[in-house]
Amino acid sequence: MTHFHFSLRHHDAGTAARRGEFSTPHGTVQTPGFMPVGTQGTVKGVTIDQVAASGAEMILGNTYHLALRPGHQTVRRLGGLHGMTGWKGPILTDSGGFQVFSLEAIREINEEAATFRSHIDGAIIRLTPEHSIEIQESLGSDVAMVLDHVVALPAERHEVIDAMERSIRWARRCLDAATREDQARFAIVQGGLDVELRQQCASELSSMDFEGFAIGGLSVGEPPPEMYRITEATCPYLPAEKPRYLMGVGTPVDLLESVARGVDLFDCVMPTRNGRNAMAFTDQGKIKIRNAVHREDIRPLEASCPCLACRHSRGYLRHLFVAKEMLGPILLSIHNLTYYQRLMAGVREAIEQDLLGEFIASKKAGWASSPSSS
Amino acid sequence: MTHFHFSLRHHDAGTAARRGEFSTPHGTVQTPGFMPVGTQGTVKGVTIDQVAASGAEMILGNTYHLALRPGHQTVRRLGGLHGMTGWKGPILTDSGGFQVFSLEAIREINEEAATFRSHIDGAIIRLTPEHSIEIQESLGSDVAMVLDHVVALPAERHEVIDAMERSIRWARRCLDAATREDQARFAIVQGGLDVELRQQCASELSSMDFEGFAIGGLSVGEPPPEMYRITEATCPYLPAEKPRYLMGVGTPVDLLESVARGVDLFDCVMPTRNGRNAMAFTDQGKIKIRNAVHREDIRPLEASCPCLACRHSRGYLRHLFVAKEMLGPILLSIHNLTYYQRLMAGVREAIEQDLLGEFIASKKAGWASSPSSS
Repeated sequence: MTHFHFSLRHHDAGTAARRGEFSTPHGTVQTPGFMPVGTQGTVKGVTIDQVAASGAEMILGNTYHLALRPGHQTVRRLGGLHGMTGWKGPILTDSGGFQVFSLEAIREINEEAATFRSHIDGAIIRLTPEHSIEIQESLGSDVAMVLDHVVALPAERHEVIDAMERSIRWARRCLDAATREDQARFAIVQGGLDVELRQQCASELSSMDFEGFAIGGLSVGEPPPEMYRITEATCPYLPAEKPRYLMGVGTPVDLLESVARGVDLFDCVMPTRNGRNAMAFTDQGKIKIRNAVHREDIRPLEASCPCLACRHSRGYLRHLFVAKEMLGPILLSIHNLTYYQRLMAGVREAIEQDLLGEFIASKKAGWASSPSSS
Repeated sequence: MTHFHFSLRHHDAGTAARRGEFSTPHGTVQTPGFMPVGTQGTVKGVTIDQVAASGAEMILGNTYHLALRPGHQTVRRLGGLHGMTGWKGPILTDSGGFQVFSLEAIREINEEAATFRSHIDGAIIRLTPEHSIEIQESLGSDVAMVLDHVVALPAERHEVIDAMERSIRWARRCLDAATREDQARFAIVQGGLDVELRQQCASELSSMDFEGFAIGGLSVGEPPPEMYRITEATCPYLPAEKPRYLMGVGTPVDLLESVARGVDLFDCVMPTRNGRNAMAFTDQGKIKIRNAVHREDIRPLEASCPCLACRHSRGYLRHLFVAKEMLGPILLSIHNLTYYQRLMAGVREAIEQDLLGEFIASKKAGWASSPSSS
């Protein structure tokens, strides 16, 4: 596939971190990189210009949500995800597998398909690997994810094995069903918290012709050290020359720990969701901006931050939330998106200088200093 | 007051419309002009950059709301309305008189003060003309409005007279209480729908040292022709060399009809409120973007509009509202704010060319054509 290329520019001397570039038909993404989530065709609360201004280079769309509303054929007629949203950079779409898992309206998963109820109108939906690819081809994303079978943890080992093996078979069906030359396919490694299963799954998927590899089924409630352990054990079993994507992760510290274990791409709703809920990420820890201590604080969230929110005082941001003004969630979403991108820019620079370990230690120290004002 | 200057550049040949410039400590406003409303220190749903990008030159803040939350002393400590919101242009604040009227928690209005309950916590608030000015001086607006006594219409004539005469006495008290050289005071003409009372009130206020004059107590439910009649009868009784501001008005056609009768400034929540409610203003009439007819419509709201919303299809805008995404209200607010500013820019150009009558006729014809798609 000449439309896609992943080049590794540098390996951190002290960790498994990689500094790379992932080229797609809609531009190049510097890795390690973070993708804001645009579930329903919009990163919640912000304009596409503000997403770009945050430094984001690639965003994510949710196949399940978009297939239900407005419908993938409608998205296609409105110009595909790129034309509809106005986002000019690369877009990755998930497969719907995670939503089948997370929305509690599952009816049945068998070898052929996942069958479940729409959370919008209760209609019964049957999603096959082939259908997931067809939808994603209509959406026109640069990267399509394979349909996978995610199980809730903890689970019986035979269930985990069953889901992992099905995920491999479905991955192959997705590859076989794909028709678009300008869309890459990423496989998804499953296997629960079992290192042996994860490595087996990674090895089998690595033998197939995917442009990238994801680690799925994590960040579903397990303790972070478990997630790090599985990530660390899995990455070496994935092709070194392809991008690695840890799905749905995570907190700032999760990102750093996972980069150090060899992950290149991330996505998470946390920057926008927490922003809407009045929580701002900073290098000095989290700030709950509704707290009364911020009432007449003239300082910005972070003096060094170039975002729109940081042109304002904490006192003003607090007022906006207390007064239930939309601008509060808008500005904190912008700040958090910018925070994540600046964090990843710092990560990339640290890798280039073989200083990722020091960078991580420094960030952790700042976060642990959590100001009394938060 | 050397900080303020109103210069009339041209009078329309066929109407009473004027083309002017109002200079303030924070810049010059081209008139006729429209002020977006920032009730609680934010124009709802949009960033201050987006307000500026819409073409707005002056915005309005609400004294009553800001005095309650976050409190005018807090606003002052956060840099005044300008410093707090980041708006660099002129700001006008109302006096609280209209909220005393419109919020149904009035306890009493006597010669000394209006006493009422906070809509937030039920606390009893006593607002005098002097206190209204003190609050507005803390807010630091460029233009402060006098505290007036607004009555619901229809009302007994003696009630209208009583409120009108009190408004004149309160206007004088506001002038006497004012201390800031860098803040202009605008008087407010009352008198209900009685031309004789309106003209008497305008004449008496005109003898006082105000930098501008407002027509208040309209747009409170009376038929538009009544509002036009009162505006037309009142303007000639106001000083020709001072700006005239019709408070709380209005629809696009209200603006045109009132400009033609000699009004220079307007404010209204309609662009943002209607935008949040999925209604877009266009030269072809209103568009209710939630309607199913827009589902796969690839056209923008208006092909000629340069706003952010008009970079997107109607189908996408509809999807955002149907999916309850914040970006829908954000984008339609931006569009409507831009629509109002473009309308006023057209008004100003038409006046300069002595073509306001033709401009109004052309706009009305477009609006009457209301597309079937709305």
